[in-house]
Amino acid sequence: MKARVHVMLKDGVLDPQGEAVRAALGHMGFSGVAAVRQGKVIELDLAATDTAAAEAEVKAMCEKLLANTVIEKYTVEIA
Amino acid sequence: MKARVHVMLKDGVLDPQGEAVRAALGHMGFSGVAAVRQGKVIELDLAATDTAAAEAEVKAMCEKLLANTVIEKYTVEIA
Repeated sequence: MKARVHVMLKDGVLDPQGEAVRAALGHMGFSGVAAVRQGKVIELDLAATDTAAAEAEVKAMCEKLLANTVIEKYTVEIA
Repeated sequence: MKARVHVMLKDGVLDPQGEAVRAALGHMGFSGVAAVRQGKVIELDLAATDTAAAEAEVKAMCEKLLANTVIEKYTVEIA
């Protein structure tokens, strides 16, 4: 079973990495970019075969390791 | 118009960051994780209003800046 986790900075938290990308795109001539946010995507191969159990396990991983929940939000997709 | 870009290392390219996450999860007691790949997700706010034009522009951004196409692959979603 595969899981995909997106970890993004929460809305309102300054994202200097995304801002740097936006500025670089502007310098390269891509003028129509109003905002950029950059985050992480983590793809996991899980031994679990039950969707609900897998989702609960991945959420626990996010809370404990994958995301800094003070400033980051995460979403979990199970496929 | 919003676009979301996923940038992942190509299959077969060693992913030490993902491997470090897998090892850390194992040490924390999450034993059922066979493999982890970590990549980037980039969310862009675009001024473009035409879906096809926006997708072409974001693909050009990927080729020129967002992805290192020697070792990375990317996917573009327009929403």
